[in-house]
Amino acid sequence: MAEHVYKLVELVGTSETGIEDAIERAIARAGKSLNHLGWFEVTEMRGHLEGGKVAHYQVTLKAGFSLED
Amino acid sequence: MAEHVYKLVELVGTSETGIEDAIERAIARAGKSLNHLGWFEVTEMRGHLEGGKVAHYQVTLKAGFSLED
Amino acid sequence: MAEHVYKLVELVGTSETGIEDAIERAIARAGKSLNHLGWFEVTEMRGHLEGGKVAHYQVTLKAGFSLED
Amino acid sequence: MAEHVYKLVELVGTSETGIEDAIERAIARAGKSLNHLGWFEVTEMRGHLEGGKVAHYQVTLKAGFSLED
Amino acid sequence: MAEHVYKLVELVGTSETGIEDAIERAIARAGKSLNHLGWFEVTEMRGHLEGGKVAHYQVTLKAGFSLED
Amino acid sequence: MAEHVYKLVELVGTSETGIEDAIERAIARAGKSLNHLGWFEVTEMRGHLEGGKVAHYQVTLKAGFSLED
Amino acid sequence: MAEHVYKLVELVGTSETGIEDAIERAIARAGKSLNHLGWFEVTEMRGHLEGGKVAHYQVTLKAGFSLED
Amino acid sequence: MAEHVYKLVELVGTSETGIEDAIERAIARAGKSLNHLGWFEVTEMRGHLEGGKVAHYQVTLKAGFSLED
Amino acid sequence: MAEHVYKLVELVGTSETGIEDAIERAIARAGKSLNHLGWFEVTEMRGHLEGGKVAHYQVTLKAGFSLED
Amino acid sequence: MAEHVYKLVELVGTSETGIEDAIERAIARAGKSLNHLGWFEVTEMRGHLEGGKVAHYQVTLKAGFSLED
Amino acid sequence: MAEHVYKLVELVGTSETGIEDAIERAIARAGKSLNHLGWFEVTEMRGHLEGGKVAHYQVTLKAGFSLED
Amino acid sequence: MAEHVYKLVELVGTSETGIEDAIERAIARAGKSLNHLGWFEVTEMRGHLEGGKVAHYQVTLKAGFSLED
Repeated sequence: MAEHVYKLVELVGTSETGIEDAIERAIARAGKSLNHLGWFEVTEMRGHLEGGKVAHYQVTLKAGFSLED
Repeated sequence: MAEHVYKLVELVGTSETGIEDAIERAIARAGKSLNHLGWFEVTEMRGHLEGGKVAHYQVTLKAGFSLED
Repeated sequence: MAEHVYKLVELVGTSETGIEDAIERAIARAGKSLNHLGWFEVTEMRGHLEGGKVAHYQVTLKAGFSLED
Repeated sequence: MAEHVYKLVELVGTSETGIEDAIERAIARAGKSLNHLGWFEVTEMRGHLEGGKVAHYQVTLKAGFSLED
Repeated sequence: MAEHVYKLVELVGTSETGIEDAIERAIARAGKSLNHLGWFEVTEMRGHLEGGKVAHYQVTLKAGFSLED
Repeated sequence: MAEHVYKLVELVGTSETGIEDAIERAIARAGKSLNHLGWFEVTEMRGHLEGGKVAHYQVTLKAGFSLED
Repeated sequence: MAEHVYKLVELVGTSETGIEDAIERAIARAGKSLNHLGWFEVTEMRGHLEGGKVAHYQVTLKAGFSLED
Repeated sequence: MAEHVYKLVELVGTSETGIEDAIERAIARAGKSLNHLGWFEVTEMRGHLEGGKVAHYQVTLKAGFSLED
Repeated sequence: MAEHVYKLVELVGTSETGIEDAIERAIARAGKSLNHLGWFEVTEMRGHLEGGKVAHYQVTLKAGFSLED
Repeated sequence: MAEHVYKLVELVGTSETGIEDAIERAIARAGKSLNHLGWFEVTEMRGHLEGGKVAHYQVTLKAGFSLED
Repeated sequence: MAEHVYKLVELVGTSETGIEDAIERAIARAGKSLNHLGWFEVTEMRGHLEGGKVAHYQVTLKAGFSLED
Repeated sequence: MAEHVYKLVELVGTSETGIEDAIERAIARAGKSLNHLGWFEVTEMRGHLEGGKVAHYQVTLKAGFSLED
């Protein structure tokens, strides 16, 4: 493994069903424009409430990817 | 949207099955006495262990709701 | 309940399926060598990405157990 | 000054005009139901954007008040 | 143990004599209106100085209690 | 509201006059290249001093916007 | 620019009118005894309440200045 | 003093009487199996409540000790 | 109360007997050269261990005092 | 100096030799596509271990640059 | 890569020469008793001063290693 | 060792060459006016960039020294 430089982008995934689904939606969306995604770290978990229920989970994460030379 | 004031309450939901269920139980309980719940943010995730297994997930969250004028 | 002393160990559980599974794997592994596990607290949630998808969830937690006299 | 006990409530004030106004609206609303308000501390400053402009400032604060005996 | 929901309240206890006394005063005051208090966690320790001496210890804590169904 | 993914960008707005002006300049600049800006959160407030006076306020904030599908 | 060493002092400015005024008062007071003030960073925003209103804003900041050789 | 390597262990001491007693119990228990304990740092102070009173103080600390070569 | 500016100094008090004593020693020492001490806030609690026992408590605190005009 | 707006990007530089080299590699890579880089702040220092040795230092930093009008 | 569980240990490496050397000494010492070390993260950098100079750098880090099944 | 009181000062050392050099410059400068310097802790690592390169490392640290009686 050579000496790479990585960049982090911060995203918020949302989901009506749960935390993993929100994470996976954010990653899937990021993967449309970014190759070489390598890892993520969750920085915040929030949600939107409607009618006394969880309407959306909102998971903020940082995703890291390798910058090509 | 007028200029509202919101209040935050801090709750701990517990569940034998998982994190989302613990969150939803906390919100459901809060909704019994509070209308106008608008959002939540998770501040801590813990759990109780018994017999080397997760007996309860314990999720601490802050829930925000609009104060009526 | 007498005046116990507890010790905390920090573990990272990994799972291809989700956060609770990663937690439960870490606890199951800790239970092989530690009796008297009493609680855990999540300190970090990360994951490994491959091919633009979540390959593994990685959940860091501290697990507390009672030290026997 | 006797040995009082104080309680903290967490509020979010909103304002179209600025941070101080958001704080003062939260305090004014709290003062409708709470006497003996003594101090506040800001814990978060956010805002809502519409049309590429700040639509509302949202200032989260904790306000402390003396509990009567 | 069923799947309870807990609420956290944030209090500041004060004492001329010390930290534990400030904590115990805050808990005693909370117990006047709240049953089912289960635990506390200290979030801040401050104090008031007069004449170059500690006049009051001020201990901020969160106290958790079970919400009845 | 469908299940969107949002991105956060971190900016520093500067102003000779004050904090709100620094925030609004950062948002105005972001709006030149980003549509769908939805919210911001302040992460740091600093300033530059010259001649014993505040020459510029520097407010760091994260701004979130919806990624189009 | 040579290789300087800077010192940070922590101050609390207070103002009846607002946050910027509290900051500017703290800087003005520091400038009476310190030359070469270069920057500040806000570390806390609190306030004193009287009669259900903001009596004083209290802004804690660190101010940095170059130590002369 | 040669160039040592130290290890940190995280412990929770409990006591019915107070914070220092909880700390000293944790250290005494650690000293049964660890020589060369050199310092500790408190990371959390909590407690267990029963009948509206403090039943146990729970102090979490990290204790450092020198690893022998 | 006029619009004062306060300064914070950071001190570490040590004591063989306990936390309050360490705090009071730090304040007593600060009072030798500083008038108008108004408050303190604890930022860290550590200690030195010798022979498997607490040799000294070390409490770090910030003390605030009013700057005279 | 006019009233600029700056943007922060978060990068991870890696190096087999040390921390400064990891920082400088991240900055060098950022400079390929960004002009007007003005400052950086380190937010995390990690590393990869192989065969019981440090294989790579990994330094996460935020780099700020001026946005042109 | 199967679904491993990792453990973190917290160490303090010391060195008269610098930060990387302190890290590498801590890792080398850990490697005497732990196989499968995979990564580290720095949590604190301190040092001991004697005669107005740095006598030792002290770097606290967490090192993670895979638990064998 | 008697029961000393220590004071902390916060400094920023700068260096064109690296982090240790910046720390040592800050300590050397502090030692001109302060005897009895005992330890330091790094609180921030930043740097100034010019021409796409690191022009100066800036390391913020707190240095502790014993107050004489």
